[in-house]
Amino acid sequence: MPTGTGRYTPGTMLLALACAFLAPTIAHPEDPPGAAPVAPDVAPSALAAAGQRPLVSDRLGRLLDSPRAENLRALHDLLAAEPHVAGTPGDRRVVDKIAGLMRGWGLEVEVHEIWPMLPRLVDHRVEIMQADGAAPIVLPLKERPLADDPYTLAPDLPPGWNGFSGSGDVTGEVVYVNRGTKADFEQLAALGVDVRGRVAIARYGGNYRGYKARFAERAGAAALLIYTDPADSGYMMGVTYPEGGYANGTHIERGSLVTLAYQGDPLTPGTEATRDATRIDPATADLPSIPVQPLGYDAAREILQRMRGAAVPREWQGGLPLAYRLTGGPGLKVRVTVEQSRAITPTWNVVGAIRGASRPNEAIYIGCHHDAWVYGAADPLSGMISLLEAARSWADAARRGEGPGRTLVFGAWGAEEMGIIGSSEWVEGHRDRLLAGGVAYINLDMASMGPTFGAGASPSLRPMIARAAARVPAAAPNSGQSVLERWLPAGSSEGAPPTMGDMGGGSDHVGFWCHAGVASASFGASGSAGTSYHSIYDTLAWYRKVVGDDYEPALLIARMTISALELLADEAVIPLDAGATLATFASQTRDLRAQALRSRSPAAATDGAPSENRLSALADRADRLAAVARSAMARLAAAPPDGELLDRSNQVILELERAWIHEPGLEGRAWFKNLLAAPDEDSGYASWTIPGLRRAVMRADASELDRAAAACSTALDRVEAALQRLSPGAP
Amino acid sequence: MPTGTGRYTPGTMLLALACAFLAPTIAHPEDPPGAAPVAPDVAPSALAAAGQRPLVSDRLGRLLDSPRAENLRALHDLLAAEPHVAGTPGDRRVVDKIAGLMRGWGLEVEVHEIWPMLPRLVDHRVEIMQADGAAPIVLPLKERPLADDPYTLAPDLPPGWNGFSGSGDVTGEVVYVNRGTKADFEQLAALGVDVRGRVAIARYGGNYRGYKARFAERAGAAALLIYTDPADSGYMMGVTYPEGGYANGTHIERGSLVTLAYQGDPLTPGTEATRDATRIDPATADLPSIPVQPLGYDAAREILQRMRGAAVPREWQGGLPLAYRLTGGPGLKVRVTVEQSRAITPTWNVVGAIRGASRPNEAIYIGCHHDAWVYGAADPLSGMISLLEAARSWADAARRGEGPGRTLVFGAWGAEEMGIIGSSEWVEGHRDRLLAGGVAYINLDMASMGPTFGAGASPSLRPMIARAAARVPAAAPNSGQSVLERWLPAGSSEGAPPTMGDMGGGSDHVGFWCHAGVASASFGASGSAGTSYHSIYDTLAWYRKVVGDDYEPALLIARMTISALELLADEAVIPLDAGATLATFASQTRDLRAQALRSRSPAAATDGAPSENRLSALADRADRLAAVARSAMARLAAAPPDGELLDRSNQVILELERAWIHEPGLEGRAWFKNLLAAPDEDSGYASWTIPGLRRAVMRADASELDRAAAACSTALDRVEAALQRLSPGAP
Repeated sequence: MPTGTGRYTPGTMLLALACAFLAPTIAHPEDPPGAAPVAPDVAPSALAAAGQRPLVSDRLGRLLDSPRAENLRALHDLLAAEPHVAGTPGDRRVVDKIAGLMRGWGLEVEVHEIWPMLPRLVDHRVEIMQADGAAPIVLPLKERPLADDPYTLAPDLPPGWNGFSGSGDVTGEVVYVNRGTKADFEQLAALGVDVRGRVAIARYGGNYRGYKARFAERAGAAALLIYTDPADSGYMMGVTYPEGGYANGTHIERGSLVTLAYQGDPLTPGTEATRDATRIDPATADLPSIPVQPLGYDAAREILQRMRGAAVPREWQGGLPLAYRLTGGPGLKVRVTVEQSRAITPTWNVVGAIRGASRPNEAIYIGCHHDAWVYGAADPLSGMISLLEAARSWADAARRGEGPGRTLVFGAWGAEEMGIIGSSEWVEGHRDRLLAGGVAYINLDMASMGPTFGAGASPSLRPMIARAAARVPAAAPNSGQSVLERWLPAGSSEGAPPTMGDMGGGSDHVGFWCHAGVASASFGASGSAGTSYHSIYDTLAWYRKVVGDDYEPALLIARMTISALELLADEAVIPLDAGATLATFASQTRDLRAQALRSRSPAAATDGAPSENRLSALADRADRLAAVARSAMARLAAAPPDGELLDRSNQVILELERAWIHEPGLEGRAWFKNLLAAPDEDSGYASWTIPGLRRAVMRADASELDRAAAACSTALDRVEAALQRLSPGAP
Repeated sequence: MPTGTGRYTPGTMLLALACAFLAPTIAHPEDPPGAAPVAPDVAPSALAAAGQRPLVSDRLGRLLDSPRAENLRALHDLLAAEPHVAGTPGDRRVVDKIAGLMRGWGLEVEVHEIWPMLPRLVDHRVEIMQADGAAPIVLPLKERPLADDPYTLAPDLPPGWNGFSGSGDVTGEVVYVNRGTKADFEQLAALGVDVRGRVAIARYGGNYRGYKARFAERAGAAALLIYTDPADSGYMMGVTYPEGGYANGTHIERGSLVTLAYQGDPLTPGTEATRDATRIDPATADLPSIPVQPLGYDAAREILQRMRGAAVPREWQGGLPLAYRLTGGPGLKVRVTVEQSRAITPTWNVVGAIRGASRPNEAIYIGCHHDAWVYGAADPLSGMISLLEAARSWADAARRGEGPGRTLVFGAWGAEEMGIIGSSEWVEGHRDRLLAGGVAYINLDMASMGPTFGAGASPSLRPMIARAAARVPAAAPNSGQSVLERWLPAGSSEGAPPTMGDMGGGSDHVGFWCHAGVASASFGASGSAGTSYHSIYDTLAWYRKVVGDDYEPALLIARMTISALELLADEAVIPLDAGATLATFASQTRDLRAQALRSRSPAAATDGAPSENRLSALADRADRLAAVARSAMARLAAAPPDGELLDRSNQVILELERAWIHEPGLEGRAWFKNLLAAPDEDSGYASWTIPGLRRAVMRADASELDRAAAACSTALDRVEAALQRLSPGAP
């Protein structure tokens, strides 16, 4: 049962003093009343209700009782006070604050410096050219400051830009390319619309913006403008900021354009970007070369309403009050000027550890980036504050002798917004350690955005996450339900797990999961009515107006993180379900086989030995191994070994994860080594499960399919060998 | 095989002279070259291709060869020259033109005068009230005249109005009611939005506008504004008029608001509105009492953008560039003033007959209304010109001794736009004749609007329509396909019929089908990129720009009508498939039973004798009778009788149709007597099949279901008795 403050060990006043210079007063539950604010919004009845659940031990009750809305609010005030783009002085100040907080709580902290190539905006301009020498219409590239949001009134706020745009000054006719997906450019070609030499204008959404730039450049566009459509994020979704929460007409979505065959620093593929690292020639890095500039929808409307070509296919119509056209015609010329520099620039990861008391070499990683496009109150800091509050809670627990059995490593990553750089470089520099002892990674990027919990996860982590959710009370309004109960759809059958997404691209889990094979999850609470994504409106004022000022979502994420860490760190047998991975692999492989047969892909058959049979054989073998793994894990769970036998069992459990790492990597992008998942090669955000097999089937390449199947077969050999060691004598 | 002009009988010059005063020169195919324009756009190769089909006889070939784009264009010029709202002098002039044309071609013509109550707009005004005594903002209630469309520049064009609005002058706060459906008002109530005393604003679409007014009035609204949303008909669909074909911001959809429990003249339910008919007290007619006014979307935006309440549910958002709100708040007051008169006013149906040579007492009816909201080039005249060209083609055939065996009756109906009045009054006045000898009704309202053919039909007519479509070449671009081949979805299996909709409400078929039980169909060719519906833009200029100037859609509809008439008029055995009706009844009854069980409707079970079983029994019996009917019809088709036996067989075939007429009528709306179909009681446009049973299940009223099932059972008794007479000795 969770109890009152009486049982806690003293000693936190010192820590509170230690980080007092950092401005926020972080309340520790064991502080006597009066010494620090006691947050009234953690409903004791809710926690008591959670405490009555048989699964919640006294210690977990104390851990879950630890996070405080007051603390989350103070952390938010501290970190979202100023713009902090990666590699800027503001970035450094945020790094120092995070390191100071972690040190103050007693974590072992390293400020890990890296030297990636980062872009800087030098100049930019978008103009609609006027006939007969009239002055061009200059489109705004900054958001409107709002009296209702003092953060937007600060001087020298950065304008809207896309990191790693090419530099150039081009003028051309306009072509609308819908979302700029591969399929959109194919459809334009089928419609006979020539993109060459033209200024393409695309709406955000549907893929990672870097692919819009890549496909536009490949189609021959001279420049690309990307705008936020009101049907996706603006008035068609709801009332706009500052009255409501959705994008107003001047909101500009910033964002990086990197789409390399590897992740992290463009100049140090596969190795850590230390100050003196060996670098590739920047000219050989496959970065955008055309100028790319984001726009708000008021600015985009100035262009779109002057277009005079044929109407677009119905599903390409957006939410501006005009009929969208494919082409602007010869009477409309737009000039796009972008100048960016790319320079090797230091930035930092902050990595704070709480050493495991009993199994220090097995480590769980929890991460969220710290860099932002402007203030970053939502992205990333809504997740960072939950991460920090979870870290503080565990640090407090450690001080009272209730620390984790395994090591917890909290990572505040740098330069995520420029291309998931900080975490990738850290993973590259610590890959051996991760391969040997990395239990799991939990990503909290922009995690606390509304009342509704959700998660994506590697298959082996899903059962653990469901168990973790069963032990956490749902966010207010609380009806005594657990997060799990509220997460499950109405009418779910007893024991059915909630739906969790696959892990795609787009955040800091990618290095852990796709490069090092560490089972990964992403937690998020969503459901607020609005978006400030990558705009200057991503402020504390926006967050508190739209997500709320009660910090219930951040409390929810902190508690879910704590609950998951308690299982991952302290269950004797590591709660990673290799059987779930194998069963998922089998079913995905069968689905892919069906897809290959439907499309009658040539890759579905090679001479004499149809590859469908090969896919079936892989699936059948995985299913057999899944049964073995499940019975082995059930045996271990029923009677956990101890001592060296436990060490060996846990080592094998980690080997079962790493079995899927194919060191030569996926074809065409060797940095991605996990045979179970990779980011979608054509869109960036989505997940490709079984990516080697999938790509071969999609490309209808029989010999690639042979190679991919061989790699999976070898992975299953490793799985089988590991299972033999887990259960000697099993088939 | 269709042949050249050589075989035709002469004698049409006289007819051409007879109608020369009517302005258009109608070309007859047999005119020698030079005497009248020979339309080059009827591709002889297309007709030759059609002619090579074994089903196309020489005579049908000549009939299908008869329609001419030149004629259709000339008819269109003649009839769409001026506004012709029902009961106005323009209306009378159109009536005279149609009667003159028909007489000129040799039809037996009656100008059938009726005296319904019709509405007239006296005055109207919509204003946004301003605070502190500033002048109100007066919203425009007329469309913008366009230099590109000279028809819109005419003086004194009627403004936008809704026929049968109540009169009044009210001022109130605003509430947005989405589409004003029953479900929308229920959702508003669930959201706690009070409509009482407020000015409701609804977007068009989703139901017949009269139900918007009915539900708004029932919810206590003081007035209703109905506007055309750009997401449904404007820029979000494509380029707007005059550059493109979609509704511009000033387009106003006019339209009637009548939703009575009977159709036709509001004052003479069930009887013909002759000059001296007995009338009910106008105060007892259930007509709207609140003021209702339609708006264009520019005007609607003036109101919507001033609303300040909570955002609407996502699916209520329309296409204006603002977040839609549920309420305007106290700061927004709108004044709506509407004054309309309702007066007994003469108008006319024109009914022209071509007497059947062999079976004159069996008649096929073809109809389209003639009245319009303004010019009516699309609605109704695009259908009327095809009707007239089909009539002319048959009249020419009759003159050369190739006329119809059964009588063809072409009806140009009056006052359809005011509440389907002309056709309903004609049906009421001729019901005995229809019951005795009415073979079928084909409706062509606004029929020729694009390249893609479609049809709705009573089940018994569907096989005939598919056969008719197999004999007509598809519209250009012609690839030697028939209308049927192009109609069927790609990959349809051999012999599978095309999908045809059920006959709902909203046009002149309703009297024939629902009041007199005459099997009905509606033909239409659609697919053009635009709408001018019920606005002043429904002009020849709009039609020729958007639908086209080649008149291929109108040719297609004329030929489809001719082909269907040739089957209906000249097959010895009337091609009405009672088996299809019975099988459809059975399957609809089973679907309804499943629906009742799903909703666990109390009506699904009555004491002791579950009504589901009753529905099953009805369906089983209908299936048995369907088999009997099919074998009887197959026997007749294989060896058609002649003489008196043929007369008797055809009489029974008509009795099988009329068997579904339940003289007491449907509950709550006795005028609707067909047990197979009625307009949706809550939306007006959609079809309710098996409406008696359906309503009982929807209302979960067990005793109503008993009564409805009893009525259907009695109908099946009549069917069974008729089948006995058709095939003596059958079960």
